[in-house]
Amino acid sequence: MKPNFLLKGHIVFSAAPDRLTVADHSYLVCQDGVCAGVFHELPARYAHLPVHDCGDCLIIPGLMDLHVHAPQYASRSLGMDLELLDWLDTYTFPAEAQYAELSYAGLAYQAFVDALRQGATTRACIFGTLHRHATVLLMRKLDTSGLQTYVGKVNMDRNSPDCLREADAVTALADTRRWLAQVAPLRNCQPILTPRFTPSCSDTLLSGLGILQRETGLAVQSHLSESQAECAWVRTLCPDARDYADTYGRVGLLGQNGPCIMAHCVYCTEREIQALQQNGVFIAHCPQSNMNLASGIAPARRYLQDGIPMGLGTDVAGGAHLSVFRAMTDAIAVSKLRWRLVDSALPPLTFAEAFYLATRGGGAFFGKVGAFAPGYAFDALVLDDCALPTPQRLTTRERLERIAYQLEDRAVRHKYVDGVQLF
Amino acid sequence: MKPNFLLKGHIVFSAAPDRLTVADHSYLVCQDGVCAGVFHELPARYAHLPVHDCGDCLIIPGLMDLHVHAPQYASRSLGMDLELLDWLDTYTFPAEAQYAELSYAGLAYQAFVDALRQGATTRACIFGTLHRHATVLLMRKLDTSGLQTYVGKVNMDRNSPDCLREADAVTALADTRRWLAQVAPLRNCQPILTPRFTPSCSDTLLSGLGILQRETGLAVQSHLSESQAECAWVRTLCPDARDYADTYGRVGLLGQNGPCIMAHCVYCTEREIQALQQNGVFIAHCPQSNMNLASGIAPARRYLQDGIPMGLGTDVAGGAHLSVFRAMTDAIAVSKLRWRLVDSALPPLTFAEAFYLATRGGGAFFGKVGAFAPGYAFDALVLDDCALPTPQRLTTRERLERIAYQLEDRAVRHKYVDGVQLF
Repeated sequence: MKPNFLLKGHIVFSAAPDRLTVADHSYLVCQDGVCAGVFHELPARYAHLPVHDCGDCLIIPGLMDLHVHAPQYASRSLGMDLELLDWLDTYTFPAEAQYAELSYAGLAYQAFVDALRQGATTRACIFGTLHRHATVLLMRKLDTSGLQTYVGKVNMDRNSPDCLREADAVTALADTRRWLAQVAPLRNCQPILTPRFTPSCSDTLLSGLGILQRETGLAVQSHLSESQAECAWVRTLCPDARDYADTYGRVGLLGQNGPCIMAHCVYCTEREIQALQQNGVFIAHCPQSNMNLASGIAPARRYLQDGIPMGLGTDVAGGAHLSVFRAMTDAIAVSKLRWRLVDSALPPLTFAEAFYLATRGGGAFFGKVGAFAPGYAFDALVLDDCALPTPQRLTTRERLERIAYQLEDRAVRHKYVDGVQLF
Repeated sequence: MKPNFLLKGHIVFSAAPDRLTVADHSYLVCQDGVCAGVFHELPARYAHLPVHDCGDCLIIPGLMDLHVHAPQYASRSLGMDLELLDWLDTYTFPAEAQYAELSYAGLAYQAFVDALRQGATTRACIFGTLHRHATVLLMRKLDTSGLQTYVGKVNMDRNSPDCLREADAVTALADTRRWLAQVAPLRNCQPILTPRFTPSCSDTLLSGLGILQRETGLAVQSHLSESQAECAWVRTLCPDARDYADTYGRVGLLGQNGPCIMAHCVYCTEREIQALQQNGVFIAHCPQSNMNLASGIAPARRYLQDGIPMGLGTDVAGGAHLSVFRAMTDAIAVSKLRWRLVDSALPPLTFAEAFYLATRGGGAFFGKVGAFAPGYAFDALVLDDCALPTPQRLTTRERLERIAYQLEDRAVRHKYVDGVQLF
């Protein structure tokens, strides 16, 4: 049984992509791990519940990270001088190869899990490496962290160094099935099928994963149309596919048969966008990574207009920061540059929209998550901004904006996932 | 007499725009407030000096902020949804008008000075407001802070609301002279002539300030070619000027007769760039502000190639962050987007180049400042990265990169300006 209780404070959540609901001095009701509503005057039926008075703090839904590479956390902020494909070869593949060593993986993954747990993220979709044992280790740590996560053992059987490549598709698929059996007992950390990206996966491997997906109904995550050089390479590697998205779609890995996240989508064609929309694929918008690797700027406004499901990804270590608050402010900033420099028909994202993506937008991947509407999972953050003294009188919304820009995850004083208090 | 002493640690400074000097386990010698050199083996002539052993910490020069608005610090991270001219009218002018009230100014400026003192910045060029009394108050606080700063009482006599406009040029110039007399006794905080920008200054006011500049030899700071709408407006306001830069240059306010900083320079023409180069004008490159206000991306690589003096500006509150570390990583990030989206002939800035701009590049405005070469002012930061545990063995340069991206000013454990320890 999960405890039932009330949080009292200044409550903010997304009512819609462009609209925040702000309830000052109000009560947030948690019953059986689920939100039962937000009330300024507490109904009598909740009067018996214990109140955690958060004083002048803000209370918002937990933040959602739809795309992050756990093994790259140890390398964040290093090697920021190359574009995607060279960056993978030079820095990332060698870094990931180290996870063959379980003692290294144990140290590095503990640091990642600790940081994620201490921050503002309550749920995340995470890439491991191709190493089964290290990925199981990561998932066990996450399972007991209190966070709700999806983790993928990465599949990759071509165009990568010997030290970081599965021998062939058959071996890769067999190993993936062993991994699924091993992690089946976990409750809070779920497996997600994770072909790295088309350049790293033979046609045989991708179609084998498609078969496995239909058999298991598992969710899928991968990368799509991140950089121009990558897109050109995929055209060469898969001359028969209609486009990059079709290399996943033609084997059933583009959300046709279950939940799917595609990271980046910086250079999607009209047909690709249609395919994402039709299949309800989630886009993980990773603004900082797209800057750091000089990939470009994804048309997030376009995707919002088209109603394509979308959340934010920190994409550590293409992104240097594990904070989804930072991803929010980066998303706003790059949308302004895109509007100014690329396409004046797509206006910048507003703060409310970035907050929506970080909470309700990404939360939809996990179910009824990311808002304080009745029936939504009780993921909540209590935010303290006393480190930001001001001579001005600020509204709650202004305080949230300052926290997002100035304090980021350092503002989190208490954190709840599914109604359970982590700290 | 300033104390003579040694710092021992891992020392990093810019040898040239594209080259870092790293001296691990070395000594940095301070004599009479000036750097006497960096030594791996300590020469006998310094053996008698007291050693402050910084253990495993890094030691770097203090960071330089060439452009920041003190009165806007209280509003940072708020009102980030408009472009420059609307942003000034809607948020910034009303915010600055509050500094007519000395009690408000006292509170707000104390918070600004405290934050600047606690951070990584050792020297800064600062805009106040048009209010003489509030500006004097700010300068007195800065003068005793231990920082080395230039501050301008802002001049503006047109195109702004009654509550934030000098009555006319004659009144403005008289008030400016009174201000100069009042702050003459200060030692560490110097006055700098500060026409807000051409749209806010009548021709009469600008030419009066030109005369005052020649009379006093004072440094000058202003804004130049920040946004497209601003540039178009200046063409309308000053039809006889060759271009925006000429509106300053034709009255002697473009570095012809003394040091000069122009902030932004996002949309400079070839002639304007030539004029900046000829006169040795410093460009304050403010990457985050140019994103936040959707202005664009300045061609910092071009200015580096042309050898135009340049440093970084946080431009609070167009920029949301007072950290010059953040300005470094923003400068790198936007240079990548500019290369990808605007001009593939101008490669991105490297980490070494961003560090150069933050230290030696901006430092040159203050004299021999921003490096640990012999004879340079002893501005030093002791940086502690123990909050960033890692399973990897990192080089000192990698540690510095991680600090810049992850900890920013929070890494500063000790700070020295002109050989005096602030904390």
